[in-house]
Amino acid sequence: MTSFAACLVAVGSEMLTPFRVDTNSLLITERLNAIGFDVRLKAVVADHVDELARVIEGALAWAHLIVITGGLGPTDDDLTREAVARALGLPLYRDEALVEHLRARFARRGLVMSENNLRQALVPRGAIVLDNPHGTAPGLWLERGRTAIVLLPGPPREMTPMFDAAIRDRLAPRTGGAGLYRRVLKVVGRGEADVDAHAQPVYGRWTSQSVPISTTILAVLGQVELHLTAEAASRELAERALDAAVSELQEALGPAVYSTDGRPLEVVVGELLRARSLTVAVAESCTGGLLASRLTDVPGSSAYVDRAVVCYSNKAKTELAGVPAALIQEHGAVSEPVALAMAEGLCALAGTDIGIGVTGIAGPGGGLPGKPVGTVAIAVVLQGTARVRTFQLYGAREIVKAQAVQAAMNMLRLMLLKTDG
Amino acid sequence: MTSFAACLVAVGSEMLTPFRVDTNSLLITERLNAIGFDVRLKAVVADHVDELARVIEGALAWAHLIVITGGLGPTDDDLTREAVARALGLPLYRDEALVEHLRARFARRGLVMSENNLRQALVPRGAIVLDNPHGTAPGLWLERGRTAIVLLPGPPREMTPMFDAAIRDRLAPRTGGAGLYRRVLKVVGRGEADVDAHAQPVYGRWTSQSVPISTTILAVLGQVELHLTAEAASRELAERALDAAVSELQEALGPAVYSTDGRPLEVVVGELLRARSLTVAVAESCTGGLLASRLTDVPGSSAYVDRAVVCYSNKAKTELAGVPAALIQEHGAVSEPVALAMAEGLCALAGTDIGIGVTGIAGPGGGLPGKPVGTVAIAVVLQGTARVRTFQLYGAREIVKAQAVQAAMNMLRLMLLKTDG
Repeated sequence: MTSFAACLVAVGSEMLTPFRVDTNSLLITERLNAIGFDVRLKAVVADHVDELARVIEGALAWAHLIVITGGLGPTDDDLTREAVARALGLPLYRDEALVEHLRARFARRGLVMSENNLRQALVPRGAIVLDNPHGTAPGLWLERGRTAIVLLPGPPREMTPMFDAAIRDRLAPRTGGAGLYRRVLKVVGRGEADVDAHAQPVYGRWTSQSVPISTTILAVLGQVELHLTAEAASRELAERALDAAVSELQEALGPAVYSTDGRPLEVVVGELLRARSLTVAVAESCTGGLLASRLTDVPGSSAYVDRAVVCYSNKAKTELAGVPAALIQEHGAVSEPVALAMAEGLCALAGTDIGIGVTGIAGPGGGLPGKPVGTVAIAVVLQGTARVRTFQLYGAREIVKAQAVQAAMNMLRLMLLKTDG
Repeated sequence: MTSFAACLVAVGSEMLTPFRVDTNSLLITERLNAIGFDVRLKAVVADHVDELARVIEGALAWAHLIVITGGLGPTDDDLTREAVARALGLPLYRDEALVEHLRARFARRGLVMSENNLRQALVPRGAIVLDNPHGTAPGLWLERGRTAIVLLPGPPREMTPMFDAAIRDRLAPRTGGAGLYRRVLKVVGRGEADVDAHAQPVYGRWTSQSVPISTTILAVLGQVELHLTAEAASRELAERALDAAVSELQEALGPAVYSTDGRPLEVVVGELLRARSLTVAVAESCTGGLLASRLTDVPGSSAYVDRAVVCYSNKAKTELAGVPAALIQEHGAVSEPVALAMAEGLCALAGTDIGIGVTGIAGPGGGLPGKPVGTVAIAVVLQGTARVRTFQLYGAREIVKAQAVQAAMNMLRLMLLKTDG
């Protein structure tokens, strides 16, 4: 089975500055992979007819599909129509039906269409117009030999539904379901090398299967992701192979795998809490509110997050979480006894089922002898059971904060899993 | 003045999946612009000799500079050396001095070099080897007619210092200081259209100056950014023009401009607090800890952030911030009186100079008659002065949270500026 080769072109000088990347291509790649197109080249091109035409001409030599996003607006900078017409040697004409359609769209909003918008009704001869329910820029579909060329507007809100319609009506029928299908396993609490050492003997075997699966490991903030890609003649074959692959990896990696369907850690933890009607209170120091913020990123989290306190100062630890001043004096603010006292103290004050305490040194300053920057003590108490651990984390302040938050959520998750049986 | 045209090529099949974008090009673009190179095309190419060679051949026809990142590792997938040799029609030979250099690098770490690493000593004839102090992949520098070709390793930690050395020693001397110089103004508390309406009459004049400045407006989470790009024959000329431009915009936009040097809002607010030795306590509901987390992202923020409480439940609002239960009953939890009571209550309990209260509906559920999702009441009390405002924000839960945090920090900033005089 060979897949179909695609070239993605993003048009816009702003994406050639240091300030903006093209992100449309991620969504387009995902959709194309699922119907058997393999993206072989991505290009970002300025708003310039000659330069854009050159890139399109180059891709016509090898691509089965060229997807061009952007440059379909009404201004003089919007030159994708002209560039495509030039690359294909086609004249541009004004599509009067499209003019009327645009005029009617403006009229429905009580507006008069500006002369500029007439540019949006220019169409290379033979092109099919794709409807844009979310904006004025129509899309275009052309074919040249074995190559299909799709022109889409740049704004994701307009691009996505138009592309999905093109996939459904025009592209998917060409490939008959053969394609690349993906699955993501998310792993927390283990390092990248450790995960790979255990996973490689498993995924190493998959490349020579009848449905081959390739595996990529990515280390991201406080977790490791395994991306599996199956190449199969149909969705059904792919999903069957991926289900088996996921099970094998889960067996090899154990409960460190927290998600196989994209759910982030705060959602997984939230579902465990919800299922058992448990409430939680958070006392955090070095994470500065980020743990509470992550937990409450989940819609409906008010059902289980009762409260959180950010107690940076020792005084605040005592006043908000009931940590005895003498305990801080004896062990230091960054210590397991203080983390535990924060968790227990707030839990008792709030009357919740669970208390979490986090205290550490986020840096870049504040390191102490024996407690370098990145030292973080985390305690979780759950209905009489307590766990407390000290982590040594590395990286800039925001990275230490993010990793500490992952570690705390994972401690809670593992305790919830354990007490489940 | 014409600038020099650059083509950036990122090599690596993983950047053609839905999971990863090329970000090296942002840093490279910034550095190149500053010495007069204009990036006209960015390409992402798979680990494939023919495909990569084809892109390089295409760029040789027009680019003064081709920067290729990635594909210089020791594995069979690392094919940039081969592709460049093919595109330029040059033989590859093994550089024995480089072999010795690599072997010595491994030996210093007590390791034996693997046979694979010999691939990293392959050099197209005539290429200059660029030293890599941070890894095994050497960089390469080649010239073909007017075009320079630079090969850099993919990992940013290795790529950046090598590229900076190439800029300093080889590229900057070619352009003599002519280039694109940039400045970013950050604006908060005003919408994109409003900012543009006031800014356009100002920046519209700059394009025809002797040092032309182009302006781009970007709306990002809860703020608007104006990116100014000056094209000048020297850094000195550019900086002079940009200083004048920034002053003009500041005059047109007033105190809504909070930063002209890249500092984020939490840093600007932190500096105002620090300069006047003021302390702050935060009581937040719908933002769930994000306001505290943003304020404490700043190193040294423990000097002015005393504490924060996240009080989702009404009970927590009463217990943690001293909000009278009757007040919540009377006005509802999302109301200006409750926001004010949260700010005042926590400020009194904590004994800080400043109190902030945020209460709202982050969504997607929870909207009330007259109080739709996105309604957020924010109060700031500062040594006897109080401000309270209700905002109507739009977007997904995380977007409402982020915008509410920007709005709260901006209210505090404006109060600090006012009481300054």
